[in-house]
Amino acid sequence: MAVNPPELSPALPVPGFRVGTASCGVKSADLIGKRQDLTLIVTDVAAHAAGVFTQNNFRAACVDFGEATVLSHGENIRCIIGNAGNANAGVGEMERVWSQQLIDLAASAAGCGSEQVLSASTGVVGEAFPIDRIAAGMDEVVTNLDANHWQDAAHAIRTTDTFAKWASKKVGDYTITGISKGSGMIHPNMATMLSFVATDAPLTHAQLQPMLKRVANRSFNCISVDGDTSTNDTLYLLSSGIGLGHTPLDDTSEFEQALTELCIELAQLITRDGEGVSKFVTIKVTHAHSEEDARTVGRAIAVSPLVKTAFAGSDANWGRILVAIGNAGIAIDRNKIGLKAGDVTMLESGNLHPDYRDEDGMEVFAKDEFTLHVDLGLGDAEATIWTGDLTHEYIVINAEYRT
Amino acid sequence: MAVNPPELSPALPVPGFRVGTASCGVKSADLIGKRQDLTLIVTDVAAHAAGVFTQNNFRAACVDFGEATVLSHGENIRCIIGNAGNANAGVGEMERVWSQQLIDLAASAAGCGSEQVLSASTGVVGEAFPIDRIAAGMDEVVTNLDANHWQDAAHAIRTTDTFAKWASKKVGDYTITGISKGSGMIHPNMATMLSFVATDAPLTHAQLQPMLKRVANRSFNCISVDGDTSTNDTLYLLSSGIGLGHTPLDDTSEFEQALTELCIELAQLITRDGEGVSKFVTIKVTHAHSEEDARTVGRAIAVSPLVKTAFAGSDANWGRILVAIGNAGIAIDRNKIGLKAGDVTMLESGNLHPDYRDEDGMEVFAKDEFTLHVDLGLGDAEATIWTGDLTHEYIVINAEYRT
Repeated sequence: MAVNPPELSPALPVPGFRVGTASCGVKSADLIGKRQDLTLIVTDVAAHAAGVFTQNNFRAACVDFGEATVLSHGENIRCIIGNAGNANAGVGEMERVWSQQLIDLAASAAGCGSEQVLSASTGVVGEAFPIDRIAAGMDEVVTNLDANHWQDAAHAIRTTDTFAKWASKKVGDYTITGISKGSGMIHPNMATMLSFVATDAPLTHAQLQPMLKRVANRSFNCISVDGDTSTNDTLYLLSSGIGLGHTPLDDTSEFEQALTELCIELAQLITRDGEGVSKFVTIKVTHAHSEEDARTVGRAIAVSPLVKTAFAGSDANWGRILVAIGNAGIAIDRNKIGLKAGDVTMLESGNLHPDYRDEDGMEVFAKDEFTLHVDLGLGDAEATIWTGDLTHEYIVINAEYRT
Repeated sequence: MAVNPPELSPALPVPGFRVGTASCGVKSADLIGKRQDLTLIVTDVAAHAAGVFTQNNFRAACVDFGEATVLSHGENIRCIIGNAGNANAGVGEMERVWSQQLIDLAASAAGCGSEQVLSASTGVVGEAFPIDRIAAGMDEVVTNLDANHWQDAAHAIRTTDTFAKWASKKVGDYTITGISKGSGMIHPNMATMLSFVATDAPLTHAQLQPMLKRVANRSFNCISVDGDTSTNDTLYLLSSGIGLGHTPLDDTSEFEQALTELCIELAQLITRDGEGVSKFVTIKVTHAHSEEDARTVGRAIAVSPLVKTAFAGSDANWGRILVAIGNAGIAIDRNKIGLKAGDVTMLESGNLHPDYRDEDGMEVFAKDEFTLHVDLGLGDAEATIWTGDLTHEYIVINAEYRT
């Protein structure tokens, strides 16, 4: 029951990249031939890479390996191998063995060294990783490699996602294309979010890595909770531009802006496809002392089960929103808080607005998309968070589906 | 749908204390005469007091006043006034005015100074406080004062609680009696927890205050999340012993032990009555570096919606439990983790136990009460957390009831 998933424009091919998918039955051998679950993204040249990873202390081996590889070979990456159906996480000693085997398989397929491979796994936690079934699918994935297969890859990395998620942008002559997956969005902390982004814009590892961290903070981390993520959350960005012989960009601001917009699009798609979500709510927090404070307040509202059930019940319960703001753990002045739902002013200077009528608030909360605007009245910084509601459907999915 | 609420032994009167209740229609004038919602606890002598309060930044005026009064007059308190039906929180400038008026009413009723009154309000956030209806009920509450009315008070402080919660203990010749309310236990952070405890054991404010903080950490804070509580959460402890002429206890350890047990009983009753809860789960965390670390891990498991829905679905999903442990934000060694559900060993040294069978785990998770035991394998400290599951019923209550 995704909330108004938009019709997506076609994913654009990116010079220097080919993408292949295969059906390996990662989750269960019964699924072989029935759904794609393995993705290989290869570069024709040495790609510059960046990565942002989960902060979970139980992070999976693929994350440890991916981070180390980005650091050590961030100027010479040749492929990303990704699978859905099994996260290869929480499986003890074999986790690192299987993760390395997956990387080695990809290196053979891409004709590169294992140190040039990034990997990512998503799916069930705590079950043996079916490396043999994946090995059997490697020929298929190589045969399938094509510059136009990004949308297929967006399908192949899904787990409980109800639709495939991709986005493309042009920055001058250059292209950015990204795919992502993730749908456990009521509490994104527990559901693996994967996103792979490719570009031919000529940027170096040294340029890309800090940029990707900033971009993640304004996109994927605005639908998530810092330090409170799944075992496998991974965002990779590869650039083929330098390897293709282009001169590195001097001014990266236009590219960063486009990359931010693209990642926000992908992050919003994940929110719209949140498990059991029936509403898409934008929480804008303004006049904070810092952007991080603003994000913290927005997240505190976005993760509060009492706020989320109020969204579900179309109950304009501003009291619960104040409680959530109070729980954000940052200094606030309760006499300066303003709150609007859509165009309806609920609170001003910490007091209920004299013209506010409950039925006006209810009308906004009854919509399937609306914006809450929290004005902290303290400083000049702001942030926006996107979230959904907490519904019966979420309970059904998570009490019955084994992630 | 409380989980196996035990039959409670009668609440014992405490020398030096009388309790009265009244029906004021705090939530709505329609309820006058239909349910008790005002409680007055008066002491015949100057009582020594201690208090533990919510950490929410939007905490209500009654909490600010209560904390200040415990600090300034902790050796000379004469009454507690408590009401259900309206939290007098999130209502702007009038909050402090109404809170002071409630205190003044109680002072008149108890024949003491306003600086000797502690107050606590619970109920709807963000609605005008009906101080006039409460004023009209003060005669009734005074007429009703009686040493044996503790159970009536336990009824009168309820909001969505499905049963009244009280406990009594004897420590030598002395008595401890406590009452409590709270049922938003799936995420206790948002539901007001109130508890009033009285004793005639002779302890001074200076003895009681640090003791109550320790006791709260091992009882009410084990069903809650530190720094993440409602606007009004309050725990008061009054002792009439010194005022009654007894010599202060030298060795307070026996009393502290009894008080801890009593508060754990009350806290467990709140958990059993959690909104929509169908299972009562004990999470024991052992071999942590510190008691606080152990509690942090236990809480991380207890608040994870994916773990709680797995409880609801009777799904022995140990992968989700590992993810929650990884999100606790404390250093762990994934190769040392042990996990048992009831008597069934699931993990040992971070690996699935060779004898573990999924159906054995499922059998434990299908029970309406069971214990999870997490062994961190690091140090000597431990803690226990009590929690419930996350069910459809919770969504119904919170999407439809305005707290």
